[in-house]
Amino acid sequence: MSEVYAVRRTRLRECCNAGGSAAALVSRPANVRYLAGAVPEDTVLLLGPAEDLLVCAAPLDDRFPQARPDEVLRVHVVPGDGGDPAALAAGLAAAQGADSLAVEEHHLTVARHRALGSAAPRLRLADVGTAVEQLRVVKDEEEISCLRIGAEIADQALGELLESILVGRTERHLALELERRLVDHGADGPAFATSVATGPNSGRPGHRPTDRRVEEGDFLSVCLGAAYRGYRCAIGRTFVIGTAPADWQIELYDLVFTAQRAGRESLVPGAACRDVDRAARQVLDGAGYAEALPAVTGHGVGLEIDEDPRMTPAAMGKLDACVPVTVEPGVHLPGRGGVRIDDTLVVRPEADGGPELLTITTKELLAL
Amino acid sequence: MSEVYAVRRTRLRECCNAGGSAAALVSRPANVRYLAGAVPEDTVLLLGPAEDLLVCAAPLDDRFPQARPDEVLRVHVVPGDGGDPAALAAGLAAAQGADSLAVEEHHLTVARHRALGSAAPRLRLADVGTAVEQLRVVKDEEEISCLRIGAEIADQALGELLESILVGRTERHLALELERRLVDHGADGPAFATSVATGPNSGRPGHRPTDRRVEEGDFLSVCLGAAYRGYRCAIGRTFVIGTAPADWQIELYDLVFTAQRAGRESLVPGAACRDVDRAARQVLDGAGYAEALPAVTGHGVGLEIDEDPRMTPAAMGKLDACVPVTVEPGVHLPGRGGVRIDDTLVVRPEADGGPELLTITTKELLAL
Repeated sequence: MSEVYAVRRTRLRECCNAGGSAAALVSRPANVRYLAGAVPEDTVLLLGPAEDLLVCAAPLDDRFPQARPDEVLRVHVVPGDGGDPAALAAGLAAAQGADSLAVEEHHLTVARHRALGSAAPRLRLADVGTAVEQLRVVKDEEEISCLRIGAEIADQALGELLESILVGRTERHLALELERRLVDHGADGPAFATSVATGPNSGRPGHRPTDRRVEEGDFLSVCLGAAYRGYRCAIGRTFVIGTAPADWQIELYDLVFTAQRAGRESLVPGAACRDVDRAARQVLDGAGYAEALPAVTGHGVGLEIDEDPRMTPAAMGKLDACVPVTVEPGVHLPGRGGVRIDDTLVVRPEADGGPELLTITTKELLAL
Repeated sequence: MSEVYAVRRTRLRECCNAGGSAAALVSRPANVRYLAGAVPEDTVLLLGPAEDLLVCAAPLDDRFPQARPDEVLRVHVVPGDGGDPAALAAGLAAAQGADSLAVEEHHLTVARHRALGSAAPRLRLADVGTAVEQLRVVKDEEEISCLRIGAEIADQALGELLESILVGRTERHLALELERRLVDHGADGPAFATSVATGPNSGRPGHRPTDRRVEEGDFLSVCLGAAYRGYRCAIGRTFVIGTAPADWQIELYDLVFTAQRAGRESLVPGAACRDVDRAARQVLDGAGYAEALPAVTGHGVGLEIDEDPRMTPAAMGKLDACVPVTVEPGVHLPGRGGVRIDDTLVVRPEADGGPELLTITTKELLAL
């Protein structure tokens, strides 16, 4: 892995040098992990003119058994308790002869930024912007393989849940059960808070599980994901409880399914993100559900569950090959419930078979 | 509750006016909740010269069934997708005639702070510092009652786990089981990531559960807490697995128990935080474990699990009555394991019976 990290840091360094900064300070946790391996939350990475190094709040001893920093990086530790690694890193940048330092202004707080300026008053502070986030958009096959394993784990957890008795159990219990199963199958943990929504709650994006119990005739929508080696995927499915779905349930399900398929089929390298959004959205708009739709119909996934690119009506930018994204349109009708179908796919050229579906649980409307 | 929020906002307003700002923008989620009730994460609160109001990223509709904002506050919603509530709030402050706005510089990022300045260029931006955090330190009886219920829930979850068979189960499974039980007993969720540490992992502060299985002869240390109506407590206990603890285990346990008791007994109104730390720490120092100790032996709890005050050797400040804190010394010996005992207590005057212990699970060394 060390070489992979080195290549990534070189790309960032080129980007900073082009912007006139000889040094960069990376503080956003997912960005530090991308460039330097797994480290505790408050660790920062300095790309210095002479040497790259990590600055930690505490020694990387056995308190952090999950830490796997790139071993070529020297690790500095903030002395005492409560010091800011970013301020120490700024001092170390100055000691290496840097005269300017590009920082992540979208992550550092005003107070930390000021402390950093005080720690190295001669350093000119610049903004590295979202340069690391942009590097992270296109994934290598190693990263995609982590997402693929995470998706398999989520499929397994969901599949097992479907074999159990659901009527009478609460949303909260089902969500906890799913999270336990994710860990059983080897996930680091859930990729995000598992959402289980029944009856009138079904189809709500980001619904937080309540004590409502599953009833006969309910829609049940579930959204979960596994984190595996730091990589996070998502799968969402909607089911009906009981022997036969009602007509309105079948109609609504078919509609969302059609919209989601249209979104999936539009995932080709070079497609505009807003066109992917439109492909899914116009199906639902056309059926009169414009008001019931979420602002986003899909987004990138990786070390964070919600990354660039975003599929919205106003999105700029195009999709590249090897970008993993979700396609997750849904409709929620207040008081009645709704449908949500969410897959994680990797954008691939048609010559390679088109979009690679990572979450393979069936999207037929199952009656459970 | 509306009156309680109004009183809290009045106290903050007095504090801002004394600092020369006619308006304040509160963005840190726990601070917004303290002053305005339960709202989605990215909601901000404006204390304006004419009117206090909430600014949300999305409408507070049935997507947020857990939202319970103070109903006297008008709610503004950022139009479109992805706009920053803080920037809109700055504009609304200017529209109310404010010429300066105190913001939480320890929470706002540099980029958001700049966007806020652009949204209201005539507004002078000041720093409200940790004024709200300081207001939050002393709790009212309603808040303490939420912590007390949370502690009861955590005691119940822990008690049930102790009745089950532990040998052969992994740290991860035990942690998930505890979290499920917390929810069973009415918690909003875990107060923080439940820590279960066995054998050589035992006694590590903040240990993240691994796939290690419980073995005969292990120390087992567990740290968990319930969130109840937003309030978060902590309990930590260490047990031995098997019929009889080894001599070194009994000795180490007795030592940490003695240190923890010394910490608890020093919790009186007016005590210096560093003296509470020293009371616990010197017992362990004296036995030769100075190197094995964490930087902090206790901290405040409330809407966040780690609040002011902090018990460290360099801490400034004194304890007041009605401040809930943890007392959680521990020793971890690399390769062998260790002991951690953690209680949540409320500082009370001696006339009221002294410190009130919220987490009542026994601290005898149990062999399970």
